[in-house]
Amino acid sequence: GRAEMGIVDSDADDISAQFFTDIDVTFTMSGETDGGLAFGASVDLDEGGDGSAASDDNSDDGGATIFISGGFGTVTMGDTDGALDWALSDAGNNNNGGSINDDETEHAGYNGSYLDGDGGNDGQILRYNYTAGAFGFAISYEQGDTDFEDFDFGDERTESDESDGFAIGVRYGLDIAAGTVNFGLGYQEVDVDGDDNDLDGIGLSIAATFDNGLAAGITYLDGEFDGDDEGDDHIGVGIGYTTGAITLHANYGQYDYGDDSEAEGFGLSAAYDLGGGAVVHAGYGDSDFDDDDADFSTFSLGLGLSF
Amino acid sequence: GRAEMGIVDSDADDISAQFFTDIDVTFTMSGETDGGLAFGASVDLDEGGDGSAASDDNSDDGGATIFISGGFGTVTMGDTDGALDWALSDAGNNNNGGSINDDETEHAGYNGSYLDGDGGNDGQILRYNYTAGAFGFAISYEQGDTDFEDFDFGDERTESDESDGFAIGVRYGLDIAAGTVNFGLGYQEVDVDGDDNDLDGIGLSIAATFDNGLAAGITYLDGEFDGDDEGDDHIGVGIGYTTGAITLHANYGQYDYGDDSEAEGFGLSAAYDLGGGAVVHAGYGDSDFDDDDADFSTFSLGLGLSF
Amino acid sequence: GRAEMGIVDSDADDISAQFFTDIDVTFTMSGETDGGLAFGASVDLDEGGDGSAASDDNSDDGGATIFISGGFGTVTMGDTDGALDWALSDAGNNNNGGSINDDETEHAGYNGSYLDGDGGNDGQILRYNYTAGAFGFAISYEQGDTDFEDFDFGDERTESDESDGFAIGVRYGLDIAAGTVNFGLGYQEVDVDGDDNDLDGIGLSIAATFDNGLAAGITYLDGEFDGDDEGDDHIGVGIGYTTGAITLHANYGQYDYGDDSEAEGFGLSAAYDLGGGAVVHAGYGDSDFDDDDADFSTFSLGLGLSF
Repeated sequence: GRAEMGIVDSDADDISAQFFTDIDVTFTMSGETDGGLAFGASVDLDEGGDGSAASDDNSDDGGATIFISGGFGTVTMGDTDGALDWALSDAGNNNNGGSINDDETEHAGYNGSYLDGDGGNDGQILRYNYTAGAFGFAISYEQGDTDFEDFDFGDERTESDESDGFAIGVRYGLDIAAGTVNFGLGYQEVDVDGDDNDLDGIGLSIAATFDNGLAAGITYLDGEFDGDDEGDDHIGVGIGYTTGAITLHANYGQYDYGDDSEAEGFGLSAAYDLGGGAVVHAGYGDSDFDDDDADFSTFSLGLGLSF
Repeated sequence: GRAEMGIVDSDADDISAQFFTDIDVTFTMSGETDGGLAFGASVDLDEGGDGSAASDDNSDDGGATIFISGGFGTVTMGDTDGALDWALSDAGNNNNGGSINDDETEHAGYNGSYLDGDGGNDGQILRYNYTAGAFGFAISYEQGDTDFEDFDFGDERTESDESDGFAIGVRYGLDIAAGTVNFGLGYQEVDVDGDDNDLDGIGLSIAATFDNGLAAGITYLDGEFDGDDEGDDHIGVGIGYTTGAITLHANYGQYDYGDDSEAEGFGLSAAYDLGGGAVVHAGYGDSDFDDDDADFSTFSLGLGLSF
Repeated sequence: GRAEMGIVDSDADDISAQFFTDIDVTFTMSGETDGGLAFGASVDLDEGGDGSAASDDNSDDGGATIFISGGFGTVTMGDTDGALDWALSDAGNNNNGGSINDDETEHAGYNGSYLDGDGGNDGQILRYNYTAGAFGFAISYEQGDTDFEDFDFGDERTESDESDGFAIGVRYGLDIAAGTVNFGLGYQEVDVDGDDNDLDGIGLSIAATFDNGLAAGITYLDGEFDGDDEGDDHIGVGIGYTTGAITLHANYGQYDYGDDSEAEGFGLSAAYDLGGGAVVHAGYGDSDFDDDDADFSTFSLGLGLSF
């Protein structure tokens, strides 16, 4: 479980700093078949409850995740990353100590989910991934409100195929003298109401972690809309450093939308580890838009407790 | 806990097969008094949560069950079977490996709850049962929106008694050379808005389990409406067989409604046990109505994981 | 966890006794930092769940409580008592065995929360308390929909400060020959839409527990509205006695509202402990208003099970 308490503030409204309390209880279950396959599932208290999607709507995962794995690889269904998101390292994943309000990964220039959930999809994803040494491979399918049977990999789709998402991704970890460099590459497409509204994107990330506590990375997404280059592009960079109980992180990102508008932002976090699962967190996020009046920043300070 | 993942399909709509994820965490609590009475309670994660009937509406059980038992028998309150349902073996209880979407026990010809919850009742039941050797006995009361104080067993009720349910049931298990034959007999009545709308039913079931893995049974309900024979009748039969890791089950049922309309259906399930709590499930349900255009079938295939 | 089953009745409506089932699962988490600070959090199953305030609304505690404590004292945030409520012993706290429906502490003359949550506040409280031997001290702040930054202890507030609550309290336990006498004193103010609508109150309680199983106490609150004496006053007395497995409790309370209207009530409870966490509970509450037609009473009888 996890609990967080502190204060949060945003200059996007007239409301000043507010108390912040959050609590989460995660139920993790696991087992193994006689044949040696591992399986498991997890759901959070805040994802369950009467009427919730996780437990009462079987066609929506609602945050629950279920997997089975063996020598053949791992099959995961539910609230999990698509293969593109699985392959890439986000800018905020470079040695980020986190914050209670996630300010540093929710600014206007941050991209954390790539095309998962785009096109009105509900994020209920089926993913297969396989790892051999430093090399990893995944394919995934995210189901929209559509015919599963008509899904036909590689072929032209009919208009009755609404909002299916398909992705493929590869990862490679290169050991160097001072640490490891992780390369990720993936492709995801989302078919929305027939071919004329397709979204797709190619993403690439390079992230290095060094033995001295430093981590840095860059991620790039080249998005397309209806097959031409007017899609949304994104670039993000992040850096983090841990020394003793202190972890500092910064990231910057920029969206270049298909209509020539832009948004950018940066995030900062600082964490001080008290040990035993208690960490003091500070987070800051700054969002900039073409319209300066829309700019805003958010801040949080508090205690994160892991149990 | 339990998790299920797979695909489900129904030909009742234009939507084709859909991903299916379900997760359930059950909290079971038990204790014993100094005098040796056992007591306990259980509730599922998907039945709790803020605003749920289980935890926030004390006049509705919302899925929670609470019991206390001792030499005097067992008293259960909450989401439990009425005495008729308690006494009988459903057609789908004959060695059924189950399915992730319960297709085989939710077709139009299936009867699983008898008169529990009928007449607008909420299923909050108080049941006393007592077992002596092979013989079992139960009485139950299901409370509607009415006066508990006015409840007067056997007497004529006033119109202010809305939707009370009362039931009585007996069970007997007969050991035979090749296995056991279980007999169940019960009676349940539901008073709806005074005597003119009473529902009642007499039910009987015979279910045999054999040492060779076979199980088969029949269940019959003779329903009455307002004291005459125009009530809903139902007959159901089921058979199941287990050999090694495989369990196969089939059932068939037919409703003969008081207005001379009928509905029937059959269900099939196949389960392959991978061990350790992981089972591959396939289920099929077929529903037939007097109006053929209303007929439909459902199918599911997936993995059930018990923890 | 805890489960309760029984029957409840109120003569405030035409509905007679109803079945009562309630179930609660509490998740309690705790840890310790390397420096020896203890921390923890708790939330109930009925407070969590998808969409609940506890887990999904970080600006409302929704029933969750989080604390960290050390030699400096204890800091608690969430669903906890304000410093006034923390300091005082309620009338119903004098050796009360409790009831399944809380009849004895919910009558019209009962005061259990003092000014916590008044003025439209949400009960999300930050409290610091420190205990040295028999002496205890606490200060608390309850945040309304307002500016935290503008909070200025002791100074005049601006109208933009809506519904902040501030409290201070002290406790002292005096050992006497036959037991202990606990003294509590506190002050709480709630600023509602600027100074003209301030609520505040000074509360005092004296509660004695004796080694022979008897406990008795009195609590008094002198409330003010907008700085003069037209606020709501309250007085409450309670007494309880435990002998063997039996606990009996009675309390009485009276409100004297600022508009010269009054309300009073009394509560009774009886509990018989079966051991192992199972207790038989009976409760009664009687509420009297200036308008006799509004008078009502409630009753409950049932089994409380603690796990």
